[in-house]
Amino acid sequence: MSKLNFINNNNQSGFVDFDDCGVYPINNKEAIIQTVDFFTPIVDDPYIFGQIAAANSLSDIFAMGGKPLFALNIAAFPTEDIPLEVLSEILQGGQDKCNEAQINILGGHSIKDDIPKYGLAVTGLIKNKNILRNNTAKNNDLILLTKPLGTGIITTAIKHKLCDNSTLKKVVHLMSTLNVDLTKINNKINACTDVTGYGLLGHLNEMCKNNLSANINFNDIPFIDKTKDLAKKNIIPGGTKNNFNFYKSYVKFDNSLQEYQKLMLADAQTSGGLLLSVSDKDVKEVLCFLNSVNNYKTKIIGKFATKTDKNIIINNE
Amino acid sequence: MSKLNFINNNNQSGFVDFDDCGVYPINNKEAIIQTVDFFTPIVDDPYIFGQIAAANSLSDIFAMGGKPLFALNIAAFPTEDIPLEVLSEILQGGQDKCNEAQINILGGHSIKDDIPKYGLAVTGLIKNKNILRNNTAKNNDLILLTKPLGTGIITTAIKHKLCDNSTLKKVVHLMSTLNVDLTKINNKINACTDVTGYGLLGHLNEMCKNNLSANINFNDIPFIDKTKDLAKKNIIPGGTKNNFNFYKSYVKFDNSLQEYQKLMLADAQTSGGLLLSVSDKDVKEVLCFLNSVNNYKTKIIGKFATKTDKNIIINNE
Repeated sequence: MSKLNFINNNNQSGFVDFDDCGVYPINNKEAIIQTVDFFTPIVDDPYIFGQIAAANSLSDIFAMGGKPLFALNIAAFPTEDIPLEVLSEILQGGQDKCNEAQINILGGHSIKDDIPKYGLAVTGLIKNKNILRNNTAKNNDLILLTKPLGTGIITTAIKHKLCDNSTLKKVVHLMSTLNVDLTKINNKINACTDVTGYGLLGHLNEMCKNNLSANINFNDIPFIDKTKDLAKKNIIPGGTKNNFNFYKSYVKFDNSLQEYQKLMLADAQTSGGLLLSVSDKDVKEVLCFLNSVNNYKTKIIGKFATKTDKNIIINNE
Repeated sequence: MSKLNFINNNNQSGFVDFDDCGVYPINNKEAIIQTVDFFTPIVDDPYIFGQIAAANSLSDIFAMGGKPLFALNIAAFPTEDIPLEVLSEILQGGQDKCNEAQINILGGHSIKDDIPKYGLAVTGLIKNKNILRNNTAKNNDLILLTKPLGTGIITTAIKHKLCDNSTLKKVVHLMSTLNVDLTKINNKINACTDVTGYGLLGHLNEMCKNNLSANINFNDIPFIDKTKDLAKKNIIPGGTKNNFNFYKSYVKFDNSLQEYQKLMLADAQTSGGLLLSVSDKDVKEVLCFLNSVNNYKTKIIGKFATKTDKNIIINNE
């Protein structure tokens, strides 16, 4: 779910923190967690778009350490301009991802609209003690990332027909890959969020509470192949530039880093990976678990340390 | 929530019946109920639009006999074309209706979009035995309606500047009035739904299962003042005409009814009233309760009887 940041500035939404889901405790032991997310197509193929949108919506539940229970469809579609078969394909993509996550879609809402949009409202149930917050990292925790970055830059290249077919396949596979169900290793993780619209810098910045700064090594950050080449050619989406301009004051960049490298760190992700904070003693077990269930090798990209004057320090060793 | 009818025709959504909410039992006693709804402004005032959209979204929970627990905002807004203060007012309207319903908004999703849209994903918790379905009416039940009809026709007149100020105030008051929390009299109601986009005929048609037909007396149906005058002048929204054309084959109209009167019955409602099916022995208690808590006098508009060749019979006595 997006963080309604421009809404929040007006204190109108009743949204209290910047966590990935709304959390509603229903008794002493359990809480309902819920998220809603939808967006316009980022790839041409409607079935793949449906898969990506659903994987992206489901991700917020996984980022809270939860398991999804069920979903509702959210669809906006120009029924008079585009054949309904296209909508069917979008919905089939969403349905197949929900099947993969072993949940049912129990209804939804559809409106006529000029530009198609699709996503899910997803509900999960979680034991209160298992809820993973984004701002509960501990000093000396290692920072793990479960998917490479670069979806914003590469989908922008796709839009401008500047992307080769092999890279397109890679980014589509990444965005339609479900994030990992952490319920089996919940107690080994101190904090978690998923990397989405605010990019690595934005989401990492949310994790830097409790007097902590994140120390990241640029060369340890995984990127999808070609992200660097495209960024170098200045193929950077507007959202990524906005993220960079908003978050740069919280970051100390190594002097050797080029402008395009800094922008890569702010790249707005769709259906990006999980960002986890794990103690040194538990990291082996967590990595072992993640690498046994996830299609992408989880990378240790840095660690939390006592706060300095910046929330995030990017080294380039 | 809309019933995704065009989607359902393709059997793509996994949506099983036409009830007002998704229902997910979490144990032997309780279920989570959930709905999602949003739409484009139907009045000029953003604060009132927010109130109406929120009341409309909350209605599906009341129609299932439930109590809302919490909500998430859904907002689409052209941030570059319309001042953010307008969005703040929309959200404030939604927030105030949620305050009235005694629930919090725990987050949400916002996107940039050419045309503003607003609504809520609302979640409730309900005892399984208290769930009110729309298709469980019993033979000889009386049919009750808690708000007058005509919001589609009157809001169309507003758009065309054909509506007087007093009628505008009436329709705004009606649409922003929360439907009734039925939890105190759940066990006295056999079936319930709310009258929204498919109009009285559409939603009544969904109730005509179990070998039942609905016998309605046209003159007992409450309409907002001026609805008849406007309908007579052919001020009829497209959605209302579509409803009429879709549902007319299920209806036997009294020969004396004019075309404009038939269209009034199909008028697509926004934030319309509850349609309840109540046994003769319980109707006094239910009416007494409804009239003690609701701003509108609930009307008995007809009764269910053994199925004839049409689902709905409209008399004009």
